[in-house]
Amino acid sequence: MLPTKMRAVAAFQALPIRDPNSLQDVWLPLPTVQDNDVLVRVQAISMNPADVRFRHAIRGKTRPHVLGYDGVGEIVAVGTQVHDYAIGDRVYYMSARRRHGTNAEYQVIDQHLIAKAPRTGSLAQIAALPLTAITAWELLFERMDIRPAAGANNGSIMVVNAAGGVGSILIQLAQWAGLDVIGVASRVNWPWLQKFGVTQLADYHDDLTSQVQKLGYDYIDYIALLYDPVPYFGTVADVIAPMGHVGMVVDSNTPLPVDWLKGKSVSIDWEYVFAKSDYAYRMNTQGEILRWIAELVDDSTIKSTIAYKFNGINAQNLRQAQAMLETKNTIGKITLEGPFDGDAKELDDVKLEESQSYVE
Amino acid sequence: MLPTKMRAVAAFQALPIRDPNSLQDVWLPLPTVQDNDVLVRVQAISMNPADVRFRHAIRGKTRPHVLGYDGVGEIVAVGTQVHDYAIGDRVYYMSARRRHGTNAEYQVIDQHLIAKAPRTGSLAQIAALPLTAITAWELLFERMDIRPAAGANNGSIMVVNAAGGVGSILIQLAQWAGLDVIGVASRVNWPWLQKFGVTQLADYHDDLTSQVQKLGYDYIDYIALLYDPVPYFGTVADVIAPMGHVGMVVDSNTPLPVDWLKGKSVSIDWEYVFAKSDYAYRMNTQGEILRWIAELVDDSTIKSTIAYKFNGINAQNLRQAQAMLETKNTIGKITLEGPFDGDAKELDDVKLEESQSYVE
Repeated sequence: MLPTKMRAVAAFQALPIRDPNSLQDVWLPLPTVQDNDVLVRVQAISMNPADVRFRHAIRGKTRPHVLGYDGVGEIVAVGTQVHDYAIGDRVYYMSARRRHGTNAEYQVIDQHLIAKAPRTGSLAQIAALPLTAITAWELLFERMDIRPAAGANNGSIMVVNAAGGVGSILIQLAQWAGLDVIGVASRVNWPWLQKFGVTQLADYHDDLTSQVQKLGYDYIDYIALLYDPVPYFGTVADVIAPMGHVGMVVDSNTPLPVDWLKGKSVSIDWEYVFAKSDYAYRMNTQGEILRWIAELVDDSTIKSTIAYKFNGINAQNLRQAQAMLETKNTIGKITLEGPFDGDAKELDDVKLEESQSYVE
Repeated sequence: MLPTKMRAVAAFQALPIRDPNSLQDVWLPLPTVQDNDVLVRVQAISMNPADVRFRHAIRGKTRPHVLGYDGVGEIVAVGTQVHDYAIGDRVYYMSARRRHGTNAEYQVIDQHLIAKAPRTGSLAQIAALPLTAITAWELLFERMDIRPAAGANNGSIMVVNAAGGVGSILIQLAQWAGLDVIGVASRVNWPWLQKFGVTQLADYHDDLTSQVQKLGYDYIDYIALLYDPVPYFGTVADVIAPMGHVGMVVDSNTPLPVDWLKGKSVSIDWEYVFAKSDYAYRMNTQGEILRWIAELVDDSTIKSTIAYKFNGINAQNLRQAQAMLETKNTIGKITLEGPFDGDAKELDDVKLEESQSYVE
C-alpha cells in the first residue's frame, strides 16, 4: 500500500538561498497518476542551474513549488496507458518543468520521458545524468548537425565551460562521436577534464583565440558555448570555421552581434532542454536519448560526472547545494541520495495541483 | 585569336549611383588564365544587392573594380587542370568576390564554381539564376536542415521578402522539396508570387503573426528572413516552431535579441553565398548546386525569375539597374544581355591585378 502523504522540499517564494525559508521540508499529498504516467519513489536526485533559476522566478508567497529535474527511482504505480514499464523497474529521467519535480518522495512522470536506469553505477551517479546528458545529446546531435554514432564525425569542437555539468558529459559524447575536443575551463579544473581524456586545454582567463591557434587550429568546426555567450562572442567570430555551428544553452540577457557570424555562414543553435516537454513536441525522444545514454554508461564510454554528493534529501542539503551552484564555481554535478529525511511540517489545505504549478 | 583588351564596366570609387562616374566604360587587358580557370566570353549578366554593397564599400579612388556576380557565357580558353569543360561550352556561374566579376567581356573563373548552362531559357533567363539559386539552395538544404529532394520534406516555411531575387527562387525550391510555403510580400506583389504557385500570402504592412494564424498555422517550421531581420524578429519568436530554423541572409546592423528564440531550441542559420569562395571551402559544391539547378530548369520545376531586362551591357544600363535595386522595391531579378557596347575609354597603366582587387 502506498502512503497518502509524502515528504517533499518546497519553495514558496523567491528568497535568498541563505534564508532557511527559501526551501522547506513539508508533507504533501501523493500526486495522482494520469494515464500516461508512472509513479516513482525517488531514490536520488541531482541539482542543475534550472533549480536556481526557477526558484528565483517564483512569483507569490504561499503555494508550494517542488523543484528538482533529475531523478532516479523505482516505479510503484503505472497509468492505464503504460505498457513498457512495470512496478519495480528502476528508471531515470528529467522532469518536465510544468509538473512537480524530483524534490519529493514520490513523483508522477510521463512515460515518454523516462528510461530504464543504467545497470552500472550508484544511485547518485545515475541521478547525475539525465538533464545534462539530454542537453548535451540534443545540442550535439539534434541541433549542431553532428552524427550520433561512435567515430562518425571528423572535425573539432571547442567546449566553453567544459568542466561544468553539461560540459563534463558533452566532452565525452563529442569524443565518442569522433570529434577533437578543446576544453575551455579555468586552469584549476584542467585535471577534471584530463580525467575524461581531454588533452587540448585552454583557460578562459587568457586570450582564447591565441590559445586555439597555439593548439594548431586555424578554425574550429563546432563551438559549444555553455556559459554566458557575451564575453566569448568575439573569439567565436574569430575561430569558428566556415559553415560552422555555435551551440548555446545560456541566455545572454542582452542582444548579440550575430552579424559577426554572417561572413562564414555560421549557424547559431539554441538548446533548451525543456522545450520538448513545454511544447509536448517529440517528448519520446528524451526517453530514447536516455536509453542511448544508459548503453554508453554500461559499456564505460561515459564516466560519472559526479563531483559532490550529499547524503539525505532535505531542505538543508538542497539549500546548500543551490548555494554552491549559485557561486558558478562548481564542476561536474552535485547529487543528493535518499532517503528523504527532513523534519517536514504539515501544510494547511494543500491541493496537489498547487504543487504542480508552473514556474517561470 | 583572342583580343588583348576587352570592354568592361568599372567602379573606381564609391559615388552615388546617379553620378555618371560611379560606373564607367573602360578598356582593360584580358585576364590571365590560371591552371584551374576557364576564360569565359560573357554573354549575359544579372544584378544583385551584392553589386550595390560592394560598390559602396570601395575605398580609394583610382583602381578599377569590376563588379558583377552572375554570368553566362561561352568558354574560350581553359587552364591546364581543366578537364571537364572545353572551348565552346556554354557555362553559367556565380563569381567569387575576390576576383574581377562579370561586368567585363571576358572573365576568368575557377572551374569548381561553374556548371554547364541549362539547355532551355534565354541567356538573360540563365544569367538570372546563379547567385540567387545558390543562396536559396545553400540556405534551405545546407544550413536549415531541409532535404534536397522532390517532396522529401513535411512542414511549413514562411519566406519574408518572397518576391525578391532570392525569395523568387527559394519559394520554388521549397515547394519542390515538399514544404508548404507562406509568402510574405507587399500585396501589390502577390500576383508575382501566385505566378510561382504560392497561394498562402501575407503582407508585411499588416500584423504578420495574426495573418499566419488566420492561414491556420500555430507554428511555422522554417522561416527564411530575406530582409533586415530586426522588424521581423518579434513575429519570428511568436510563430517559429519548437526546434525550428530561422535562415537569414541580410545583416541586421544591430545586435539581435536572440534570447527570444531560446525557449523553443531554435537555430539561426546564416547564409552568405560568398563564404565558400572567400574561404576556398568546398567551392566545388557551388558548381554541383548549379548542375542541380540546371536540371530543375530543364524539367520546368523552376520558372524564370526575371522581372527586368536591359539590352546591352554598359555603364549607363548598369547604373540604372543598380539605382533600381537601391530602391529596395524591385521584384525578381534584373538582367542585362550583351553585347558589351559601352563607349569605353582607355586607362593609363592598368595592370590586370588591379581589376581583381578585393572589395569590402
